[in-house]
Amino acid sequence: MRVGGIAYRSIWLSDDSVRVQVIDQTLLPHRLAVRSLVTLADAEHAINTMMVRGAPLIGATAAYGMALAMATDPADSMLEKAHRCLLTARPTAVNLRWALDEMTSKLQPLTPLHRKQAAYQRAAEICNDDIALNRAIGEFGLTLIQAIAAKKTANATINVMTHCNAGWLATVDWGTALAPVYLAHDSGIPIHVWVSETRPRNQGAALTAWELGQHGVAHTVLVDNAAGHLLRNGDVDLVIVGSDRTAANGDVCNKIGTYLKALAARDNDVPFYVALPGPTIDWTLTDGTSIPIEERSGIEVSQISGRNKHHGINSVMLTPQASAVANPGFDVTPARLVTGLITERGVCAASKEGLLGLYPERAPRVLRYKQ
Amino acid sequence: MRVGGIAYRSIWLSDDSVRVQVIDQTLLPHRLAVRSLVTLADAEHAINTMMVRGAPLIGATAAYGMALAMATDPADSMLEKAHRCLLTARPTAVNLRWALDEMTSKLQPLTPLHRKQAAYQRAAEICNDDIALNRAIGEFGLTLIQAIAAKKTANATINVMTHCNAGWLATVDWGTALAPVYLAHDSGIPIHVWVSETRPRNQGAALTAWELGQHGVAHTVLVDNAAGHLLRNGDVDLVIVGSDRTAANGDVCNKIGTYLKALAARDNDVPFYVALPGPTIDWTLTDGTSIPIEERSGIEVSQISGRNKHHGINSVMLTPQASAVANPGFDVTPARLVTGLITERGVCAASKEGLLGLYPERAPRVLRYKQ
Repeated sequence: MRVGGIAYRSIWLSDDSVRVQVIDQTLLPHRLAVRSLVTLADAEHAINTMMVRGAPLIGATAAYGMALAMATDPADSMLEKAHRCLLTARPTAVNLRWALDEMTSKLQPLTPLHRKQAAYQRAAEICNDDIALNRAIGEFGLTLIQAIAAKKTANATINVMTHCNAGWLATVDWGTALAPVYLAHDSGIPIHVWVSETRPRNQGAALTAWELGQHGVAHTVLVDNAAGHLLRNGDVDLVIVGSDRTAANGDVCNKIGTYLKALAARDNDVPFYVALPGPTIDWTLTDGTSIPIEERSGIEVSQISGRNKHHGINSVMLTPQASAVANPGFDVTPARLVTGLITERGVCAASKEGLLGLYPERAPRVLRYKQ
Repeated sequence: MRVGGIAYRSIWLSDDSVRVQVIDQTLLPHRLAVRSLVTLADAEHAINTMMVRGAPLIGATAAYGMALAMATDPADSMLEKAHRCLLTARPTAVNLRWALDEMTSKLQPLTPLHRKQAAYQRAAEICNDDIALNRAIGEFGLTLIQAIAAKKTANATINVMTHCNAGWLATVDWGTALAPVYLAHDSGIPIHVWVSETRPRNQGAALTAWELGQHGVAHTVLVDNAAGHLLRNGDVDLVIVGSDRTAANGDVCNKIGTYLKALAARDNDVPFYVALPGPTIDWTLTDGTSIPIEERSGIEVSQISGRNKHHGINSVMLTPQASAVANPGFDVTPARLVTGLITERGVCAASKEGLLGLYPERAPRVLRYKQ
């Protein structure tokens, strides 16, 4: 997507074909800084400190982290170490493990001599595949937006509400939840996005608002608390959010607060869609109840960072020093509240049947024989 | 309630019996500063800048504002001016108009000579009445907590979730939603409060956490987004919130985000109670749909203030400079989501019948004749 009129990806290879470039998302929306990742430790650090975040981008960064490790030392021991280190850099995101397993299964059979080149090639493929997936999600989501537009008066603005950042900054490009929005905007449909700030880390206010603004998409920031009022007030045509992990029955684990939006959308008959690429579906989970919820540092709640009047970035303390803080990072939205799942293979019901309709190869063999 | 072991009210008359003292709530939880209000303009400023906030405390401050005006100039013109100025200091809160009307109807018939003393007397009564109301709300709410405690194992902690600040800082003392909590705590019931930070102004993280901590009540701060997860996880025994304005059918207008908590409580069969003193019921409203929702300054969303590392208080910018911001201050929770209303006269269903059962004098005459 565009930044200041120039097309960007969230991760790309530098001209020397070794170093990996990423946008430091901890400084947005206040400053656009590009960082070079040179070592395995750099990649681990980028994931761990949320310089890069969003399940697909974490996967892409981990893949390039393996490549950086191979560029330094292509031995078996390093292959193992890189897999181990990167896997523990963040919990929850299923893409991380998927990308690392992909890289390892590609590299392990090769002699060390061939690993570096193969690693960079596979990492680049993972990035390109992500873009293709997201673009496909965008196309399927666009049909939903077009259907809503067809029911409104000509040239009426379509109001989409989203949560957190499931835009191009969370992926390599296009985004998941925002891919349909970008395609609608680029095709001339008047579209406006309600951006929920998404406490505690404010990825909505900081990242979603920034990337929409840079690409020229109309948007308005609100506190998470205001989502219910806007939905009740008829100000929202549809909600589209992303997913960090989707269970086989369509339960959706996503950024904390997603469940509240789903409840409010249902209470007001507003369609609530979840956009997700296939690799974020965890087929081993029959439902969302067993997804471990990352309890993150209380500092994310008690302190907040922003731009001060001297244009520096600093943190301020919000809570009494003696107060305890809880900070669950994700919640689970039960499938019953989800209108549909938008995947790279099409839109389906948030159910086992819906998902297996799009991914029949995932059906247990016994079931397939029965059919 | 106690601050550092000393009993406080949120507003009190100074030793000179003219100046009015209030806690500057814009500096909490970082600094405890007491301000003297000397003129009508001081009272207006205190309400307008949210140095004092919470419907009952706004009413009490307005009453004392009238007294300060009478101390300066007890003429009819000043009586009118004070009423007019104070009424426009904040929209939404129905107590403000109620307190001003009370004062005017008391003072207008008097000769100017007698107005000052009568004004101070009536303002003090309004404060004492507020405390009595809240204490009564606390007693009725306590029975709900005791009933829940009776169903749990002996000495098990009761977990209450609240929103915004409906504690003693929002009233003259005791609070509304927190009065039952303080009575339960003081009577030895182990109680723990989940404190939702309540963006954008963070009255939960700043005020509720501070006042609970000062009084010694166990509590944990969370972002508003986390409320759904905690309710779904079985971590909450009951929700108690306050109300800025309650319609005659039991619809509740309260701080933005209340509606989302009500939805999540209902989805998980957790009782959701609203604590409110009689004067906040707007009998002229048949339901909540026509309550005007205050659209507050976008700066409350785009900037946040807190304590910096030098122990000063400053603001930081959270959003991209070019992004639009929406900031509705309140939302309406439909009566169907409310388990019960806790008033100074008892607990009732959130319905016209429920409220008229406690306030039969409000029944239209025709209806009373029919009975």
